[in-house]
Amino acid sequence: MAIPPEIFLLPQRSDATLQQQIQQIVAEAIVSRHCAAGEKMPSSRKLADHLGVSRITITLAYAELVSNGYLISRDRSGYFVSDTAPTQPWFAEADTSAPAGIDWDSKLARRPQSRGDILRPPNWTDYRYPFIYGQSDPDLFDHTNWRNCSLRAVGRKDFDTLTHDHYQNDDPMLVEFILRYILPRRGIRANPDEILITMGGQNALWMIAQLLLSEGQKAIVENPCFPGLRKIFDQMRYIAASIDVDNDGLPPDRIPADADVVFTTPSHHAPTNVTMPLERRLEMLEKANRDDFVIVEDDYEFEMSFLSAPAPALKSMDQIGTVIYLGSFSKSIFPGLRLGYVVAAKPLIQEMRELRTVVFRHPPSHIQRTTAYFLSLGHYDSQINRMARVFSKRRAIMEHCIREFGLTPDVRDMHGGSSFWMKAPEGVDTTKLAVDLRKQSVLIEPGNAFYAHRSPDTSHYRLAYSSINANLVHDGIALVAEAIAKATKAR
Amino acid sequence: MAIPPEIFLLPQRSDATLQQQIQQIVAEAIVSRHCAAGEKMPSSRKLADHLGVSRITITLAYAELVSNGYLISRDRSGYFVSDTAPTQPWFAEADTSAPAGIDWDSKLARRPQSRGDILRPPNWTDYRYPFIYGQSDPDLFDHTNWRNCSLRAVGRKDFDTLTHDHYQNDDPMLVEFILRYILPRRGIRANPDEILITMGGQNALWMIAQLLLSEGQKAIVENPCFPGLRKIFDQMRYIAASIDVDNDGLPPDRIPADADVVFTTPSHHAPTNVTMPLERRLEMLEKANRDDFVIVEDDYEFEMSFLSAPAPALKSMDQIGTVIYLGSFSKSIFPGLRLGYVVAAKPLIQEMRELRTVVFRHPPSHIQRTTAYFLSLGHYDSQINRMARVFSKRRAIMEHCIREFGLTPDVRDMHGGSSFWMKAPEGVDTTKLAVDLRKQSVLIEPGNAFYAHRSPDTSHYRLAYSSINANLVHDGIALVAEAIAKATKAR
Repeated sequence: MAIPPEIFLLPQRSDATLQQQIQQIVAEAIVSRHCAAGEKMPSSRKLADHLGVSRITITLAYAELVSNGYLISRDRSGYFVSDTAPTQPWFAEADTSAPAGIDWDSKLARRPQSRGDILRPPNWTDYRYPFIYGQSDPDLFDHTNWRNCSLRAVGRKDFDTLTHDHYQNDDPMLVEFILRYILPRRGIRANPDEILITMGGQNALWMIAQLLLSEGQKAIVENPCFPGLRKIFDQMRYIAASIDVDNDGLPPDRIPADADVVFTTPSHHAPTNVTMPLERRLEMLEKANRDDFVIVEDDYEFEMSFLSAPAPALKSMDQIGTVIYLGSFSKSIFPGLRLGYVVAAKPLIQEMRELRTVVFRHPPSHIQRTTAYFLSLGHYDSQINRMARVFSKRRAIMEHCIREFGLTPDVRDMHGGSSFWMKAPEGVDTTKLAVDLRKQSVLIEPGNAFYAHRSPDTSHYRLAYSSINANLVHDGIALVAEAIAKATKAR
Repeated sequence: MAIPPEIFLLPQRSDATLQQQIQQIVAEAIVSRHCAAGEKMPSSRKLADHLGVSRITITLAYAELVSNGYLISRDRSGYFVSDTAPTQPWFAEADTSAPAGIDWDSKLARRPQSRGDILRPPNWTDYRYPFIYGQSDPDLFDHTNWRNCSLRAVGRKDFDTLTHDHYQNDDPMLVEFILRYILPRRGIRANPDEILITMGGQNALWMIAQLLLSEGQKAIVENPCFPGLRKIFDQMRYIAASIDVDNDGLPPDRIPADADVVFTTPSHHAPTNVTMPLERRLEMLEKANRDDFVIVEDDYEFEMSFLSAPAPALKSMDQIGTVIYLGSFSKSIFPGLRLGYVVAAKPLIQEMRELRTVVFRHPPSHIQRTTAYFLSLGHYDSQINRMARVFSKRRAIMEHCIREFGLTPDVRDMHGGSSFWMKAPEGVDTTKLAVDLRKQSVLIEPGNAFYAHRSPDTSHYRLAYSSINANLVHDGIALVAEAIAKATKAR
């Protein structure tokens, strides 16, 4: 493709001749890599038309640029950017320093300090033993059928309606399938005006926090908890009260009577995976009723309950409508999809919809429709069955190796899921351990990122098996054990 | 597809027999339309396995449901939901009233009152003469090539990387093409760390407002202005100062010296389409430098400048980095895409990226990659050329009809775009006019939605031609003129 003439604009004010100005803008475009080696320049006629100068001025400028090594001329086919033209890298220091007139620190509202926790590096796929959580395994995903659904959603019939701005509305097809096929598995019955599609679970938690929390209201979170939730509070400069979970999850008797909103993951606590027993769930609902607080139930990974049938959601036992239920397709389809949903009372859903409209209107329609097809054609069910089968096998291998090398899971997990919550021997700092292991191409997730600011943690780590090949588990766990042994000895 | 057994769950506590409980949950699923007429029930064996009851219990329950008219039995192929089963509509009052225990009004932070402006109805495609703005014309969109790009983006090669959580990052391919092909047309040079992909222009404006505005800081907006921007302030409960635009756009000499952030649409003011002349742009930049305010330049429709070459962006003349530039693909590709970008100084982009991560992580990867292909394969250029050609012709027809029927454009518009900003004769209330015209299947946009709260407008309206067939323009304008004549006479 030839470089379009429109990318060249003459400077507003210049003392140089027109020909010099043209040389300057072309050279600058090449040096700054906006035109790449080998690309074809616009013809002299087209560039002359566009800039409103004579064609001979362009020809002369091009000739000069050839003799300076920026362009090469090929007979009959025109001018091209030279392979040996002077360039500078994109991220050149010189480039970014130019507009330095503004003191942005003074303009920006003061931001909370980042804690600098490490969890997983963006380039995790480069590591041989990635015991990391929440990323999809391409070998497990039903790519062919996803592609077919995507293709169908972009077909003429759907496309005309999907291209429009949907104002406040979600894809009715997706909403219907969630209501009819997904929620009933959790014992939840809901109407279309009690559900909102979100950009994944993070987006749902964020919207709920915006609408329900303001100064003077008390939010309760589990400790440890999902770091994305804590980041929301940090960004709002809101201080939530953390309550330590035990082997049955969040203890309702420790929730203060003046609580307004309680964020919880009852069916499989994040990150420990413990399941809240039925009695405690009923106690929690009774307390919510008595003390008039709202429960936000994040049911992020219920599809992976392969060790035992998933416990019914709190929402399914909620008689008074106090539970806000969150589901996500990030684990069961893939995280880059960015799609989830909230089920709650109609007035709250209406407010969330208003907020969503102001913040970004609606999740892209094509993604919603593709997911609706994936659900309605039964691919979603096959997909989660296949994942549960494979994860179940991988988990058995993990358990075997964890035992073989004498590592210690911290809790009894009846859920399944895709990770183990582990405890390192006393004195081992798991953040340091994780950093050391990276050198051997092993990724583990140190526990500190999950804990409240007031209670830093050095002894836990998470070993996930959703993204590691079963054949590599044994050697990977061996390396973890070796590093722990070394760290223990070093004390 | 058979109904999956997982959607049926036994109640936690019940005095009924198992068989009765099963009848109840199946009947309830049918009545509430979670199982639809004609759908196949799970086999008795599968449902028995799932619920942990004996198969005979299921068979007896099914037989009872048949005799009660919920199910029908077909020999050898199993049980199906009966066409004549009792059902109730989704939106039944009885259904939504159930969980009414919570007083959500007291839980929700007080929300600003909605102004109740009308602009365009969601079902605008049902109207014969839709003079509405901002929706795409399916006949103009290069659907075939968009489909090909979508298909390519969901191909195996791209897919594996696109499925991952991208943490904070954008698609590098999309970023590169915006930097190299789009921005240079506006005279803007930028580095990858000076750009952020957003969920459309609305999302960009929202993020900027969150980061730059807090109590005590002064924001300036144009009057009239884009209603989506005013909604952001309403949601933040922030009061921005409005400055009336004249025929050259926002007058810099009316910007107070203590302004902190100025939101403007210089190249084609929304909604009037007036273009700010070069001298005023330079004056604006000098004033921003002198008074130390930030300029937010929303360049939402620059691709449609077919009447004259687009004026260079303010950002292209910005020596000190005070301009935050916003682009969007909503007009040039389609609004349901929800994709745009911000170009600004690196520290601000970093903060926006942090905020985006907390709110929804990142725009879906597949959408970003599809757009990157559409740009890089040259389809985008063909698309906007085709749109500009068609819009230019439609505009000529519009102008002809507007003259023929004696309607009055309010400003001289040198830009092009896809709409006219019109003034009704004195005494005509354009909101009432728009409501009346709907009865004749004509949609116009009354001006009031664009004006500040303190200065309600009854005399302006917008006639857009991006979504109306050229053949219908004449009759549509005739109906508008007739309604205006009637409203004038009625006084």
